[in-house]
Amino acid sequence: MNASKNNKTENAALLICTVDVVLLTLREGELQVLLVKREREPFANALALPGGYVHPQDDQSCLDAAQRVLQSKTGLQSPYLEQLGSFSGPGRDPRGWSISVAYFALVPPEALPSPQAGCEWRAVEGLPTLPFDHASVLASAVERVRSKSQYSSLPAHFCSEPFTLPQLHAVYAAVMEESINAVSCRRKMEELDFLEAIEGAKSSGGAHRPAQLYRLKEAYRLRLKLAERGLNA
Amino acid sequence: MNASKNNKTENAALLICTVDVVLLTLREGELQVLLVKREREPFANALALPGGYVHPQDDQSCLDAAQRVLQSKTGLQSPYLEQLGSFSGPGRDPRGWSISVAYFALVPPEALPSPQAGCEWRAVEGLPTLPFDHASVLASAVERVRSKSQYSSLPAHFCSEPFTLPQLHAVYAAVMEESINAVSCRRKMEELDFLEAIEGAKSSGGAHRPAQLYRLKEAYRLRLKLAERGLNA
Repeated sequence: MNASKNNKTENAALLICTVDVVLLTLREGELQVLLVKREREPFANALALPGGYVHPQDDQSCLDAAQRVLQSKTGLQSPYLEQLGSFSGPGRDPRGWSISVAYFALVPPEALPSPQAGCEWRAVEGLPTLPFDHASVLASAVERVRSKSQYSSLPAHFCSEPFTLPQLHAVYAAVMEESINAVSCRRKMEELDFLEAIEGAKSSGGAHRPAQLYRLKEAYRLRLKLAERGLNA
Repeated sequence: MNASKNNKTENAALLICTVDVVLLTLREGELQVLLVKREREPFANALALPGGYVHPQDDQSCLDAAQRVLQSKTGLQSPYLEQLGSFSGPGRDPRGWSISVAYFALVPPEALPSPQAGCEWRAVEGLPTLPFDHASVLASAVERVRSKSQYSSLPAHFCSEPFTLPQLHAVYAAVMEESINAVSCRRKMEELDFLEAIEGAKSSGGAHRPAQLYRLKEAYRLRLKLAERGLNA
């Protein structure tokens, strides 16, 4: 910190304000992130997190801006979206001192049936260098998702509805990268009470007995249900 | 969201960027927040959270700006400080569309021996109307502090060092506004392992047996130690 003692202008500092969105899914048993080829400088043609300027004429908040950016680049309307935090400073954007308010969103892999031109799903591990501070933003989102999965309904947003409890169990385990006891997982889902059984609907079963099909309760589509204790506690 | 279809300028939107700090302490058994009388319009003379513009010439990040604002208004150097989130939109500041990156900080009640002129500690419950969206920012900080206290070393930042385990136990209970079993609290402190006993130092005891005195381990002065499960789990 440079706490200089000079007189400061008391005028507003007008800064570059952007939003960035970490859109995650679970494909092939691993977390993947949507990257978009940048059309413009800086970093034209590089793959980056979808992002853009806040438009004060259009956006009622940074959340609005994030939804608009996500919709314009992916067509997604209202996935689960949560503020991750702000990333700021003189060095993160070559255009100048900037603040990016970052969000993360979760979707099932089928939600983007054919990613638009310039969009690619990439595994979150082993990515090439990303422009700006997008590597830090992504790492922070992945850490948040793994940590919240311990004690919330969050991983269910990776599941296409309807789903069975064994399918949901597998998603929790894949996100957290650890094995979870099936009985304690089922007990946790009951305690969290964020699912509703679809009356009369059973999976076809295959080699297994047909299993009850579930979907998220309406109240937990855009917000999480939190548990008092973690899955492995 | 107004997703207008007009051509947008692709120039950067330059917006008003501020930081606000929710400085909390525990006094008289309740959470209190530091409010500062505003010297300038808008809301001149109103009590508000300490805040100010980001100074791109001085600040390397919004965190830097929050530390600078806090130090200039309270003299505090490096309390525990964490980003709470961003608050944004056209209506929160009469000067125009603005983004405030909000932080919360925790200090023991003795950390500000004589609050500077214009500063007041106020109980977080039953406050008068606050300017801007400071009531929402404060409510969000209090919710974060209570929820994180369940499973982290956070409440220890309200304790003046050195302290005894019974003193720390009382602080946890006061912050969370619930009674906590003394044995499970002691077990949780051991599991979290963020304290160090001060060799040879015991409390004078009064009516009780002298008790061991503790302080935070150096590694946990500026970051939290997190537990896998909550205090009441």
